[in-house]
Amino acid sequence: MDYARIFSDAIDRLHEEGRYRVFIDILRNKGAYPNARCFAGHNGPKPITVWCSNDYLTMGQHPDVIAAMEEALHDVGAGSGGTRNIGGNTHYHVDLEAELADLHGKQAALLFTSGYVSNEATLSTLAKVLPDCIIFSDELNHASMIAGIRNSGCEKRVWKHNDLEDLERLLSAAPPEAAKLIAFESVYSMDGDVAPIAEICDLADKYGALTYLDEVHAVGMYGARGGGISERDAVADRVTIIEGTLGKAFGVMGGYIAADRTIVDVIRSYAPGFIFTTSLSPVLVAGALASVRHLKRSSVEREAQQRNAQRLKEVFADAGLPVMNSATHIVPLMVGDPVKAKRISDVLLAEYGCYVQPINYPTVPRGTERLRFTPGPSHSEEMMRELADALVEIWDRLELRLAA
Amino acid sequence: MDYARIFSDAIDRLHEEGRYRVFIDILRNKGAYPNARCFAGHNGPKPITVWCSNDYLTMGQHPDVIAAMEEALHDVGAGSGGTRNIGGNTHYHVDLEAELADLHGKQAALLFTSGYVSNEATLSTLAKVLPDCIIFSDELNHASMIAGIRNSGCEKRVWKHNDLEDLERLLSAAPPEAAKLIAFESVYSMDGDVAPIAEICDLADKYGALTYLDEVHAVGMYGARGGGISERDAVADRVTIIEGTLGKAFGVMGGYIAADRTIVDVIRSYAPGFIFTTSLSPVLVAGALASVRHLKRSSVEREAQQRNAQRLKEVFADAGLPVMNSATHIVPLMVGDPVKAKRISDVLLAEYGCYVQPINYPTVPRGTERLRFTPGPSHSEEMMRELADALVEIWDRLELRLAA
Ligand SMILES: Cc1ncc(COP(=O)(O)O)c(C=O)c1O
Ligand SMILES: Cc1ncc(COP(=O)(O)O)c(C=O)c1O
Repeated sequence: MDYARIFSDAIDRLHEEGRYRVFIDILRNKGAYPNARCFAGHNGPKPITVWCSNDYLTMGQHPDVIAAMEEALHDVGAGSGGTRNIGGNTHYHVDLEAELADLHGKQAALLFTSGYVSNEATLSTLAKVLPDCIIFSDELNHASMIAGIRNSGCEKRVWKHNDLEDLERLLSAAPPEAAKLIAFESVYSMDGDVAPIAEICDLADKYGALTYLDEVHAVGMYGARGGGISERDAVADRVTIIEGTLGKAFGVMGGYIAADRTIVDVIRSYAPGFIFTTSLSPVLVAGALASVRHLKRSSVEREAQQRNAQRLKEVFADAGLPVMNSATHIVPLMVGDPVKAKRISDVLLAEYGCYVQPINYPTVPRGTERLRFTPGPSHSEEMMRELADALVEIWDRLELRLAA
Repeated sequence: MDYARIFSDAIDRLHEEGRYRVFIDILRNKGAYPNARCFAGHNGPKPITVWCSNDYLTMGQHPDVIAAMEEALHDVGAGSGGTRNIGGNTHYHVDLEAELADLHGKQAALLFTSGYVSNEATLSTLAKVLPDCIIFSDELNHASMIAGIRNSGCEKRVWKHNDLEDLERLLSAAPPEAAKLIAFESVYSMDGDVAPIAEICDLADKYGALTYLDEVHAVGMYGARGGGISERDAVADRVTIIEGTLGKAFGVMGGYIAADRTIVDVIRSYAPGFIFTTSLSPVLVAGALASVRHLKRSSVEREAQQRNAQRLKEVFADAGLPVMNSATHIVPLMVGDPVKAKRISDVLLAEYGCYVQPINYPTVPRGTERLRFTPGPSHSEEMMRELADALVEIWDRLELRLAA
């Protein structure tokens, strides 16, 4: 068995397809975001502007978050030192779970080490506890939900993205007596479109299904208290399980679910991905607690971010750049080719000091490779204009077609 | 479908078996470990002594670790703001991977959000890249390795714990042309015994298998630089992939693998559990970096911990307590009943202020429920004697049999 050959072939395939990933090595400058330092080449760090962070509201640099983390660091130390069950259940964890349950108007919440793990662990465990469960999964669901569904070993029906008719067709074809779970996202992060949550809940009621909603790209961002699209649309009470992350708008790291007490207790008690791992560092939990609390009270960050996202879409459209139709804070530009997407990103970084990562397969379907911009509250009009000018020049240089 | 009933039945089953888990709510006192505060009941926090932390060397409170985290917090902020590929690859990540590769004498290393995720993601991906792979798994492997193996969908052969004959029997029965991977741990954390790594590598050579070694409970703890049992036994170069955690002896949070460059690149490029998640907070990475660097140079913590573990075994044995035979820093006391294990732990905490968690199924097999003590470098002789006296009194009260 020529193991070395198998491994190097696997890497060669990526190079051939033009989707071998090179990580850009950066450090953000706290207090001066979107400015950062990039460690490329050997000439020391170079100043750049970041355009692709999922710390959407720059909460990772908010003074309250930093102060809370510093305090926890000095009070209890770096890590939790154990699983939640064995020594790793701190008072911060208990407080944050109460805060998140309240955020979504649910009885309880449960923390995981990441949003990925919360999806994987919850979906795979739910479908094991429910006998002969069928999961109805939106075709654009995130890799972590797909992993959870696959690992559950249960039956899965994939419905066309955000297509209520297709979902109803599949629900009505399933045995009425089978346990059913509809799994979907609120904001789809690569296109920026939004699910019709109320209508999906109507179908769930009609066919006796539970609902599982990934609000990873919406928590902190939508709703008067940052409860996500389900808060904005006043449907949180109709969703069985809401899942979110602490690593994007909340600016820290970690994931969670919120649901009724018994469901949370089942996941807490049965999910290997929750049970058998060192719990989140109390330092992170303290930071997330400050962040969630702040965004419950303050909409300044959300509003500034929405304004900037709207403005960037206009600037791109005015420049004739192929900005995709997005209903949210996400601003994707279609390229449609992995090699060109990477090339644009490389030139932007090397010549213009603008950092945006190319999005290639498997993150998006082949042929829809794109650049995905996420302006924050502090990206200025001037930065946007410079970015658009640079893109027009590069588009021209690479002989890409401009819109109209 | 009566979903509520199914969920509450699942919880009732745990109560009936006496293995419903109640998390003890604590905060450790930085600088005064093993002292901590326990938030039970409504009378405010109560001082306790922690006996079950996996922050084995108290590195989570080491001044260098705290200082490094504080510096990173103020330099770059709370979170990474993205996946490793999209904005979340900081200079800290790059540095720590180099440091960990060096620790194990490997070409490369890769960080994950936890040890659990590193096992799950690496094993499930490896077995997909290798055609028709068979994984040979020690029967006591950790839940995260079992999850990775199951999720890979590949063939699995389970060998008797640490039993070379059984492993060879299975290897020799497998088709010679099949890809093979032997997955095992160095220190088994619930019994404290150690795998014969060299002999397992001999078998791997003989039958053309790769080896995957979980050193989660050994990194930082064994070997002159904390490289684990594979360093102590001078066999690191014979192991294909070494996996470790940053959340136990290193005192922070996160996981990793170290291996040759191409294998690391394959996992980096193909593993969903690595790709599709916000990367470790740079604050944690900075802390882990300081911790790994410190334990490469300093053996003081390791030696003090080993002395105390040895001493606690003696104190328990002298008191006639059923201390299990452990070759390492782990000190388990056999109880053999889930209800009694929990009762001992409850009395110890409520009446003696000593915190040790009962270890029940599914963490250990049913009928082998136990208490697991992990004294750190700062547990004193006096604390040990008080603990043993308390245990003897409780053993007596619960009419458990004392040894001899
Ligand atoms: C829709 C969706 N769900 C879940 C996740 C995982 O969340 P986390 O980054 O906290 O692991 C992501 C992205 O990372 C995501 O885009
Ligand atoms: C043997 C073993 N491997 C892996 C893990 C997971 O590591 P982590 O806690 O970093 O997720 C653990 C315990 O948590 C373990 O005991």
